[in-house]
Amino acid sequence: MLKKVLIVLCRPSHPGNIGAVARAMKNMGLTQLVLVSPNQFPSQQATDRASGADDVLAQAIVVSTFEEAIHSCQWVFGTSARQREFPLPVLTPKQAAEMIKQLSGSEQKIAVVFGNEQSGLSNEELHLCDYHLSIPACPEYSSLNLAAAVQVIAYEIYQTTVNENDSDSKPLSRSFIKANSGEVMGLIKQFEEVAIALKFLDPKHPKKLMTRIKRLFSKAQLETEEVNILRGFLKKIPCTLK
Amino acid sequence: MLKKVLIVLCRPSHPGNIGAVARAMKNMGLTQLVLVSPNQFPSQQATDRASGADDVLAQAIVVSTFEEAIHSCQWVFGTSARQREFPLPVLTPKQAAEMIKQLSGSEQKIAVVFGNEQSGLSNEELHLCDYHLSIPACPEYSSLNLAAAVQVIAYEIYQTTVNENDSDSKPLSRSFIKANSGEVMGLIKQFEEVAIALKFLDPKHPKKLMTRIKRLFSKAQLETEEVNILRGFLKKIPCTLK
Repeated sequence: MLKKVLIVLCRPSHPGNIGAVARAMKNMGLTQLVLVSPNQFPSQQATDRASGADDVLAQAIVVSTFEEAIHSCQWVFGTSARQREFPLPVLTPKQAAEMIKQLSGSEQKIAVVFGNEQSGLSNEELHLCDYHLSIPACPEYSSLNLAAAVQVIAYEIYQTTVNENDSDSKPLSRSFIKANSGEVMGLIKQFEEVAIALKFLDPKHPKKLMTRIKRLFSKAQLETEEVNILRGFLKKIPCTLK
Repeated sequence: MLKKVLIVLCRPSHPGNIGAVARAMKNMGLTQLVLVSPNQFPSQQATDRASGADDVLAQAIVVSTFEEAIHSCQWVFGTSARQREFPLPVLTPKQAAEMIKQLSGSEQKIAVVFGNEQSGLSNEELHLCDYHLSIPACPEYSSLNLAAAVQVIAYEIYQTTVNENDSDSKPLSRSFIKANSGEVMGLIKQFEEVAIALKFLDPKHPKKLMTRIKRLFSKAQLETEEVNILRGFLKKIPCTLK
């Protein structure tokens, strides 16, 4: 489905940014790059910064006008940090990604468009878009580097359309086997005996020590092997001393 | 609250990336940059790529070891695209941002750590982290440019902590104070000394023991008082024995 999403760069001035955009795209499964009147392309700087995403550069399409670039697209998202006089509906990257996901069932083509590094998209260009895509950023310093902006939006598209699809991802997946309660209690008992023998714990005035130790072990979500390591360590402590 | 979040770059090789990181940070309201043994800094290339975020570069702190960089931090998120042998809990940028938001009510310091461009974080560095932060990306091409990775994570932190902060999101501040990295490392060092003295650990054949112990303490999210209890316990062990 990401094959239907074009990334369009209008009049990019730095070839290094073109390469960095290619890398950001490929990281997030996007491959269709369209360049409108690039200042310099192809270029060694672009290839260097693409760093392995040179296939994206190799198949990039160069056109001379913005109209050509978006000609075959049904949905055009124009990225801009600036407020505009004739406002389009404004979307965050997340909202745009949700829309793109919804469109993914159809055969429609989507363009996400980025302006020149210094001047952004012109008003005329933005008027050819369906939506104004705006990356929320610090009001005092809101203009992202071109490749950084592509990275953020490509990331949101990938998270929404691809990543959330693979069986509700794997949040906090832990690959270990937690020790059972009996194992942990055995460890706690052994710790208590050693602590008493070392006079670290006074059984007549235990205070909250063992409660704290239990809580600590609970927080650690001990694995069986970890219980065994700790018990092995405790066993090495000479405890017959008085 | 974003003042409490450090961005730590370990051994960055390209000064241009340092500048691009500074810009990505400032775009998203982050200002605290720590550089561990940068290959070249300060540098004109960094300043050029910072493009107006040179204040972030000017106040960046340069240290020589990773331990120094995270010494005062309670929560350390290590960014890595690779799977590791001893897995830490893995978080997406969104999940990490949610955690950072929850921590925002407290006085705790947070580090988000990024490895060298070629090699990433070493296993030893990752073992000093509490969480493994992984940016979901295309499996065939999953390694983002350093500044792009910082941009994505800074973006998620900004969206979660600032942008969504409009009203009813009172951070669920944690009721305990997590020990900082320096305190935990002191405990680990003491444990190691005792383990060697007890002949539980053979320094010539340490295997993975200390790695496992570090990971265990990390999972436990030790509080300062718990560190003190464990150190008090270790101190009671007669270690002069041969």
